[in-house]
Amino acid sequence: MNEFDEGGMSVVREYSDRINTGIERLDELLSGGLPQNSITLVSGTPGSGKTIMCFHYIAEGLKNGEKCLFLTSDERIDSITNQARGLGFDFQPAIDSGQLKFMYLDLEQNNIHKEMEREIKEGDYRRVALDSLAPVAEVPVWVSGIHEIIPSQRSEMIKERPTGSIPATRVHIRRILSILNKKNCTSMITSEVPEGSRSLSRDTISEFLVDGILLLDLDMTMDRRKLTIRKMRATKHTLKPHDIAITEGGIQFL
Amino acid sequence: MNEFDEGGMSVVREYSDRINTGIERLDELLSGGLPQNSITLVSGTPGSGKTIMCFHYIAEGLKNGEKCLFLTSDERIDSITNQARGLGFDFQPAIDSGQLKFMYLDLEQNNIHKEMEREIKEGDYRRVALDSLAPVAEVPVWVSGIHEIIPSQRSEMIKERPTGSIPATRVHIRRILSILNKKNCTSMITSEVPEGSRSLSRDTISEFLVDGILLLDLDMTMDRRKLTIRKMRATKHTLKPHDIAITEGGIQFL
Amino acid sequence: MNEFDEGGMSVVREYSDRINTGIERLDELLSGGLPQNSITLVSGTPGSGKTIMCFHYIAEGLKNGEKCLFLTSDERIDSITNQARGLGFDFQPAIDSGQLKFMYLDLEQNNIHKEMEREIKEGDYRRVALDSLAPVAEVPVWVSGIHEIIPSQRSEMIKERPTGSIPATRVHIRRILSILNKKNCTSMITSEVPEGSRSLSRDTISEFLVDGILLLDLDMTMDRRKLTIRKMRATKHTLKPHDIAITEGGIQFL
Amino acid sequence: MNEFDEGGMSVVREYSDRINTGIERLDELLSGGLPQNSITLVSGTPGSGKTIMCFHYIAEGLKNGEKCLFLTSDERIDSITNQARGLGFDFQPAIDSGQLKFMYLDLEQNNIHKEMEREIKEGDYRRVALDSLAPVAEVPVWVSGIHEIIPSQRSEMIKERPTGSIPATRVHIRRILSILNKKNCTSMITSEVPEGSRSLSRDTISEFLVDGILLLDLDMTMDRRKLTIRKMRATKHTLKPHDIAITEGGIQFL
Amino acid sequence: MNEFDEGGMSVVREYSDRINTGIERLDELLSGGLPQNSITLVSGTPGSGKTIMCFHYIAEGLKNGEKCLFLTSDERIDSITNQARGLGFDFQPAIDSGQLKFMYLDLEQNNIHKEMEREIKEGDYRRVALDSLAPVAEVPVWVSGIHEIIPSQRSEMIKERPTGSIPATRVHIRRILSILNKKNCTSMITSEVPEGSRSLSRDTISEFLVDGILLLDLDMTMDRRKLTIRKMRATKHTLKPHDIAITEGGIQFL
Amino acid sequence: MNEFDEGGMSVVREYSDRINTGIERLDELLSGGLPQNSITLVSGTPGSGKTIMCFHYIAEGLKNGEKCLFLTSDERIDSITNQARGLGFDFQPAIDSGQLKFMYLDLEQNNIHKEMEREIKEGDYRRVALDSLAPVAEVPVWVSGIHEIIPSQRSEMIKERPTGSIPATRVHIRRILSILNKKNCTSMITSEVPEGSRSLSRDTISEFLVDGILLLDLDMTMDRRKLTIRKMRATKHTLKPHDIAITEGGIQFL
Repeated sequence: MNEFDEGGMSVVREYSDRINTGIERLDELLSGGLPQNSITLVSGTPGSGKTIMCFHYIAEGLKNGEKCLFLTSDERIDSITNQARGLGFDFQPAIDSGQLKFMYLDLEQNNIHKEMEREIKEGDYRRVALDSLAPVAEVPVWVSGIHEIIPSQRSEMIKERPTGSIPATRVHIRRILSILNKKNCTSMITSEVPEGSRSLSRDTISEFLVDGILLLDLDMTMDRRKLTIRKMRATKHTLKPHDIAITEGGIQFL
Repeated sequence: MNEFDEGGMSVVREYSDRINTGIERLDELLSGGLPQNSITLVSGTPGSGKTIMCFHYIAEGLKNGEKCLFLTSDERIDSITNQARGLGFDFQPAIDSGQLKFMYLDLEQNNIHKEMEREIKEGDYRRVALDSLAPVAEVPVWVSGIHEIIPSQRSEMIKERPTGSIPATRVHIRRILSILNKKNCTSMITSEVPEGSRSLSRDTISEFLVDGILLLDLDMTMDRRKLTIRKMRATKHTLKPHDIAITEGGIQFL
Repeated sequence: MNEFDEGGMSVVREYSDRINTGIERLDELLSGGLPQNSITLVSGTPGSGKTIMCFHYIAEGLKNGEKCLFLTSDERIDSITNQARGLGFDFQPAIDSGQLKFMYLDLEQNNIHKEMEREIKEGDYRRVALDSLAPVAEVPVWVSGIHEIIPSQRSEMIKERPTGSIPATRVHIRRILSILNKKNCTSMITSEVPEGSRSLSRDTISEFLVDGILLLDLDMTMDRRKLTIRKMRATKHTLKPHDIAITEGGIQFL
Repeated sequence: MNEFDEGGMSVVREYSDRINTGIERLDELLSGGLPQNSITLVSGTPGSGKTIMCFHYIAEGLKNGEKCLFLTSDERIDSITNQARGLGFDFQPAIDSGQLKFMYLDLEQNNIHKEMEREIKEGDYRRVALDSLAPVAEVPVWVSGIHEIIPSQRSEMIKERPTGSIPATRVHIRRILSILNKKNCTSMITSEVPEGSRSLSRDTISEFLVDGILLLDLDMTMDRRKLTIRKMRATKHTLKPHDIAITEGGIQFL
Repeated sequence: MNEFDEGGMSVVREYSDRINTGIERLDELLSGGLPQNSITLVSGTPGSGKTIMCFHYIAEGLKNGEKCLFLTSDERIDSITNQARGLGFDFQPAIDSGQLKFMYLDLEQNNIHKEMEREIKEGDYRRVALDSLAPVAEVPVWVSGIHEIIPSQRSEMIKERPTGSIPATRVHIRRILSILNKKNCTSMITSEVPEGSRSLSRDTISEFLVDGILLLDLDMTMDRRKLTIRKMRATKHTLKPHDIAITEGGIQFL
Repeated sequence: MNEFDEGGMSVVREYSDRINTGIERLDELLSGGLPQNSITLVSGTPGSGKTIMCFHYIAEGLKNGEKCLFLTSDERIDSITNQARGLGFDFQPAIDSGQLKFMYLDLEQNNIHKEMEREIKEGDYRRVALDSLAPVAEVPVWVSGIHEIIPSQRSEMIKERPTGSIPATRVHIRRILSILNKKNCTSMITSEVPEGSRSLSRDTISEFLVDGILLLDLDMTMDRRKLTIRKMRATKHTLKPHDIAITEGGIQFL
């Protein structure tokens, strides 16, 4: 990145400024961290450490005094913060002080996009973690209220819904990313990769729309975990998988 | 887990307390057992030992004096208890005393969610086994009564049903898990993996929503069975498959 | 199975009593035979010997003086009995004396479930063979008469039919199994596995609902046939495939 | 087949009598030929020799003075007889004398089932070749006239048609086989296997409904053709693939 | 082909006469060329040389003084003739003299079948190349005008269209082939094989309806191209892939 | 290309003139560059360097004084130009002078085809980059306004839409290519290949409609990137993959 023009334009500075991930060795591999104002997808199968990667990312932000937002579709916020605590990340003080907010996205309500948008606009966050993208992206967006599990009068509307069609998915994911993509805000979002699939997300589209992709892998036979920088805009990086471990202190490079 | 703060907060204690699985070696591999209040998915192909794993789990609870619930969509409860008896688990005394309840989930009725919910809320159970999740998760939930196998007047309603669409499945599984997730209750649920599939459940979603995954495997050529801890929140564990056998006493580590 | 309590309970006796398969070596591998009152799936590709396995099973029952039922959706009953005769199984005397009944399930009629149920209820059979499950399980059950190959006025009803949806299939197979599962009756049912598939049935569900699975395999390159006990409730068994041959006397272990 | 009872019953004689295939070595491998009154599926990818196998079969019948029927959905009958002639099978004399009939099944007419049935019933044929089953089996049978390639007023009926659903396919194939299955008549039918598929027919069902399966294979790398007896009722046979060649005289074993 | 009866019948002469492909070595491998009056499918992935094969075929016809037709759904006829010219095939003189016609099939018009038919009927062509079959075969044929990319009032008609159903495809392809199959006319048609597929056409049906199949392959690792005669009626041929190159003079055998 | 007739015809000159790609070694491999007036598809998985290839292509055009257009469905134009700047491509001067235009294609508007067409017609561009084709090709074209993510009254129209059907896709892609294919204009378009797929585009059709295909590959295990010329009309080329790197100066051959 030597030739990089660090001259006058603030736009350029956006990308040249790096946001630490909270994992020192990973920051080194990324020429200092994630590009500022970028969106990075963390892809992996169940149990590969995607949520823990978000913990590191948020904890690093808190250490730097940044305002942070953790978006989740899991209503058991206590369970998440406990899990973090077990890994050495005590988020309670920051939650209490207002530096960190855990926001529950209730998939059965049909205003989560507006809520996310308002929170991010008004909250002046520097870091956002969305764990995970999949349930939000799956929400059918043009028919309100269909998630209700109780039989409803709206059921005839369901047949109009071309569920899972790629164009609708792309437009939807683009919208979600555009909500995250506020000035001075850098995001990490997790993606569900079903075991046995080689794709980088359940929707196979979001990986083409983000600025970076970190891939977490499990090798059961060898009892090894790997992290690969699959893509990172404006960053020269190796494609080689790196051995990692998940320990009492979270993700560690071996 | 040494750094784990065992101080004042009761929330933390939730996860630090461990629930024995009834298989000693497995408990050791899990730093003492399943996290209290967690939900663990037991995944495997037919004949891999998923139901037997539940027997161990329930039997251990009974030994500890805990109240236990066994949810099943198999109406032949006698056949299940006989199978357990053949493996050395005599559940009859506990059933007679009321410490253990076998509850049949009749898929052709459309109130199984409410029945499950009421039973778990009112029953004050410490352990729940749901064997298996697949038929319950497949129940179409917003149209009542469609399971009737006898031709019915409701047949026009069927076309509204976007059966098997991923968003509906996710919302439904989330609901089922939320029913199981009562205070002081720890659950084990089994999942059907069709032979030849590498996925961890038939729906490919539930594995992303649970706290832990135990994978049971068959290797016919080698005449071997394996158990792998695929994921366990708040627990440091190996990913290595462990050789097991199914004997007169149930699952045994080799 | 040494610890097995053979005490007072008749329910226990159900499973501890074994039903010979008619193939001596297989009975040995199954600790004496199939569990009484159980349902065993015989899975295999075309030409793997599934029907011949049923012949052994029925012939053994006849030898023991048991009443037997052979359910088939092939209307050419003569062709089946001739095939059996060519393998050394002469069913004619038993048919004549009423000890064995061949019952043709006409898929184009819409009362086959009721007919099966009545026959099994009233017939007091000890052994039932259903060869094969696939065509019966595929019958759409809530719309009557759609099988008619002659254009019909009922054709508008076809669109309501969510053919092949998993929940409908599961409920249907459960019903069929429950018809077979009468007291004192032990069943063997065959399942169609398309060449090149690793699944254990065409529907991928029935293998999770039965008590046992016997898998028949062909290895063309090696000119070998194999039988594997894939699952058997209440029975300790090896998973190892066994070499078999199909000879003038039917299935023989090598 | 030594133990085979050759006593009084004519039904038994049906299967014990063998119908020569016209390929000497194949007849030897089949204990004398195809079982009389049986239906054999000839499966293979394009160019594997399925039609040539039918030529042998029909030519052998003509040599034996049997009446033969060749059913085809290819309207260019001349092209077929020319192809046969190039391989040494001169069918013209038999066509002229009425011993052999080539019958064109026009898929765009909706009475081909009735025509086939009447021809086979009235024609007193000993051998029938159907080349191939696939287009006939694909004809949607409950809506008349939909094949018309010219826009039609019946088009609204098309949406009711659950094209390709397995139950409809099975019932349909069963009907076609039952038309072929007349007394004293033995049939050979060809099946389309798309390149790269391991299935034995395009529909994956017909192979479970026939009495025998002959599989024709191509190995391009080795420039070899193979014939495998995949299944043959009432016949002890090897599963080993046999090397064959297609020469000026048709199929030859190497 | 020695035994081939070259006696009186003109029908036989049809197939015994051979049509040169324009590639000398290929003609030798085909016993002189394509059978007269036949239809040959040229299958291959993108960039495998299918169009160039057609150039050879048409150029050879022009050299022999035959009238030739090149059907294409690419409106840039100039671009095609330029590509040919770059490979040493100068079609302009023949176009100018009327010996060769390039005909653009406009997929968005709904009379291409009639236009093709009239041209072939009236044009008295000896050789036809159709490059490629796929877009023509995909045209939905029973609803006129649906290709319009501009929103249309006919849009409700679209739902009646069982796009891509196999029976419709087969009937359609059969029609196209029957249009090509005029007396004294021999055709070469190209087929699209998506990269990574082992099928011989996108529709997986046309390969069963044609008289011959030439398969073009790319081996990127070895930087090699291959041509395989996969099937050719009335012709003894090897199945072995042949190494070819695409040079300034078109396809060359190595 | 020695025999190439460079005589009088301007049409021929079209193809004989070469357009440099901006990567010297690639131009050599392409006999000087892309054929003038052609459309080249750049295929690759996420992070394979498709956008960077476009940067080279546009930068080379600017160096030659050509008017250039960069079409993108990413609204963050600043982010794209920043990414380019980080790789040594400073597009700002050309944007300011009007030599280069970045045009945002807003997928949620339904006039992007008309806008593209007008811009290309009126702009007199010599080079166009479309990054990427996939979102544009996915836009359903015959129903206006359906992209709106806000529930709309037009929702009943959605069910008429045979989303993703191949005929519609082909006609659509053909239209887009025809818009790009203006006189004197040479285009590079990128295509999304989902990880784990071997196809050359998401739609599996566009690769058959373009003049050239450049394939970008990642080999994570070996930490290597590769570029393969998969197809290029009117150009003799190797099929061998070439090792490349993505450095501070963009794509470099190793």
